[in-house]
Amino acid sequence: MTNPNRLRIGLLGFGTVGQAFTRLVLKERGRLLRDHALDLEVVAIGNRRIDEKRAGWAGEGVRFTDDLASVATDPGVDLVVELLGGLEPARSLQTAALSAGKPVVTANKMLFAHHGEELAALAREKGVSLGLEAAVAGGIPILRALRESFAADTLTSVSGILNGTSNFILTTMEATGRSYADVLAEAQRLGYAEADPASDVEGNDAAYKLALLARMAFGTSVPVSAVRCSGITHLLPCDFEYARMLERTPRQLAVARRVGVDGALALSVSTHLVSQRSLLAKIEGPFNAVAVEGETGGTFVLSGRGAGGGPTATAVLSDVIEIARSGARPGVPPLGVHAFAPFTAASPAASVSAVALRFVVKDAPGIIASISRILAENEINIDAVFQTRGEDKAALPFVVTLEPVAGDGLARALEALAALPFHQKPPVAFPLTD
Amino acid sequence: MTNPNRLRIGLLGFGTVGQAFTRLVLKERGRLLRDHALDLEVVAIGNRRIDEKRAGWAGEGVRFTDDLASVATDPGVDLVVELLGGLEPARSLQTAALSAGKPVVTANKMLFAHHGEELAALAREKGVSLGLEAAVAGGIPILRALRESFAADTLTSVSGILNGTSNFILTTMEATGRSYADVLAEAQRLGYAEADPASDVEGNDAAYKLALLARMAFGTSVPVSAVRCSGITHLLPCDFEYARMLERTPRQLAVARRVGVDGALALSVSTHLVSQRSLLAKIEGPFNAVAVEGETGGTFVLSGRGAGGGPTATAVLSDVIEIARSGARPGVPPLGVHAFAPFTAASPAASVSAVALRFVVKDAPGIIASISRILAENEINIDAVFQTRGEDKAALPFVVTLEPVAGDGLARALEALAALPFHQKPPVAFPLTD
Repeated sequence: MTNPNRLRIGLLGFGTVGQAFTRLVLKERGRLLRDHALDLEVVAIGNRRIDEKRAGWAGEGVRFTDDLASVATDPGVDLVVELLGGLEPARSLQTAALSAGKPVVTANKMLFAHHGEELAALAREKGVSLGLEAAVAGGIPILRALRESFAADTLTSVSGILNGTSNFILTTMEATGRSYADVLAEAQRLGYAEADPASDVEGNDAAYKLALLARMAFGTSVPVSAVRCSGITHLLPCDFEYARMLERTPRQLAVARRVGVDGALALSVSTHLVSQRSLLAKIEGPFNAVAVEGETGGTFVLSGRGAGGGPTATAVLSDVIEIARSGARPGVPPLGVHAFAPFTAASPAASVSAVALRFVVKDAPGIIASISRILAENEINIDAVFQTRGEDKAALPFVVTLEPVAGDGLARALEALAALPFHQKPPVAFPLTD
Repeated sequence: MTNPNRLRIGLLGFGTVGQAFTRLVLKERGRLLRDHALDLEVVAIGNRRIDEKRAGWAGEGVRFTDDLASVATDPGVDLVVELLGGLEPARSLQTAALSAGKPVVTANKMLFAHHGEELAALAREKGVSLGLEAAVAGGIPILRALRESFAADTLTSVSGILNGTSNFILTTMEATGRSYADVLAEAQRLGYAEADPASDVEGNDAAYKLALLARMAFGTSVPVSAVRCSGITHLLPCDFEYARMLERTPRQLAVARRVGVDGALALSVSTHLVSQRSLLAKIEGPFNAVAVEGETGGTFVLSGRGAGGGPTATAVLSDVIEIARSGARPGVPPLGVHAFAPFTAASPAASVSAVALRFVVKDAPGIIASISRILAENEINIDAVFQTRGEDKAALPFVVTLEPVAGDGLARALEALAALPFHQKPPVAFPLTD
């Protein structure tokens, strides 16, 4: 093999993903040298209390250290992989590495949700690459697909199942008929949910990832705060029964959609009732999927494991390989480093969707009449009313499906509906998605 | 925007895809300049009888010509897009362009199935890129994903639904219960099948694509003749009934799998009964899907439109953008141009799968006994026997499912089974795939 390209990697963070990455580089080194003429090597590994972490690792030729900054700026390191997670010291270390002219590859979505613009600007200024593939949907190569394959098309939406914990809980509730609290406890036992599950089940984790996806898909600087976010904590077993009657299934979807002609974006994380015929309905347990819709190319779906050491390590290594192969050309924005256009939020009035409203009420005469009146006042048309065996007259669930309705009208109607006196649970609106 | 990279494109072929590509470049030019600092322009278009083809096209600044060779070697052209299809003059023109040091982008899978090695060697010699993304599965960015994202992993299999015509026929037979001949005629009326559908329904088209996928996935030089290929022409409506009883659905799958430790590959195109729970079971009509399985990253599925002017044009443009952005670096193999390792075919003995055997017999005593005896002689275990309402005693279908069996033993058993006297149709073996 002629002229192998050697790349010396400095690794920050030697936990589950860092160790999986180091193993992967060792395992794949010979193949990459043979097939891609690339000679990749982890030459320095920084972690606090590194002596505990390195136990069991031979590490010939590797400098293990607890001085993280010395790895970020090591003249013997060509590229820095940051797998510490969190804001600090990750932010300072990435800044130091980029300032020293070293490309950075990371899985740190939280840092990029908060300081992505700043780090991207620094990378642009220094003319070095910043690899983020592992930060969204683990091993699914979606950021690269958006940057390269889908760069050929004007995209209209990017959406998906981005949080494996929520998806595990929903698909298990569906399969077993058990309650949210019960299934959450199981997910925590299995390690699919954290002791504090809020970021996953409230939709914030999916919102971080959606903001990154939308930046790549639409080239605009999307603030996380622009994502309307609702969790899965309010779902009831009856929601799965009604979904089945509608030949649908509940899924937490993160959706970024270009609305109108001015490029305004509508962004949300919420529980949709998706058609059983759709691919998204088949994404089960901790898996992730992303759907990309373009004006010319139509709709594409990518699915795979959204997290875990192995899939995340392959995503990190794919960025390293790409940087090693392509290098930086002057005048061409390097990997993941756009100059972003300003963000415009779409008006809620512009987002139109068919919706299912679920109520849980204390049974009494005139309930449907009250609901129908409020919907009519907001010029919303009822499609159908569904009610299963309602044994418990004190907490009777039923579902009203609506013809497509604009977001602002729906919000007004929901506010008026919530003020009615007979609710046992707050009414919930589920978008219907094919 | 600083330092825009200008790329002047010469287009060979101005049919459906060529026109879709030209429209796409015009439509996306402003966005690509703004977001990617790339200035792309189609400056020359070659086609026979170009004066008929160009009617309705303004084409300011475009040189329209019927002298195709003049486009391939035009000093004012930086990159050649070949959308003629077929062997000649495509082969000579690509050779001329590459010899002149121009990168080539094409959707021509037939040319690459026959002369891919030769063209790749020339591109390697000249140090220029060869873009093939549009040649497999239309707009699904699978070759790029294999080359870049999945380069980080040692792959164990690549498989998928690669022929939209066959998939349309199978999913329509399933939905309607109609016969193969009847649905084929409908597909021809709708333009989903050609007047001569042999290449699609016999599996040859899928085999060409599988050979290209396997080359990219495994870095070996896969001959099309190594793909064991069977079509869908023998499928009966009863096959869909039995598949449903097994909670499965018939799908034409192209599968390339690394078998054993020596890197030998097993390649086939055949009709599998896939689990209704799988993503592949949801790929309907003319859609395509590709599943990639890696040792570290697990399984990923990509799906989307496999053909058509728009999706193919976006795939072509994605290659053009990549070439424009990355250029060629000495010592790094350019886009799509590996040096391939020699191919080793796996022994049929190494491929093990659960299987359903479908028989159509003239009813008589002792049929199951005869079949069971032959299977036992070949050390094959029966899992179960299924038979639906068999009104027609002269042509009675039934299904025998087998426990996992090696390919060589199955082939021997099928040969002996086919010699039994009671068949009304040749027995068929369907692999069972989850």
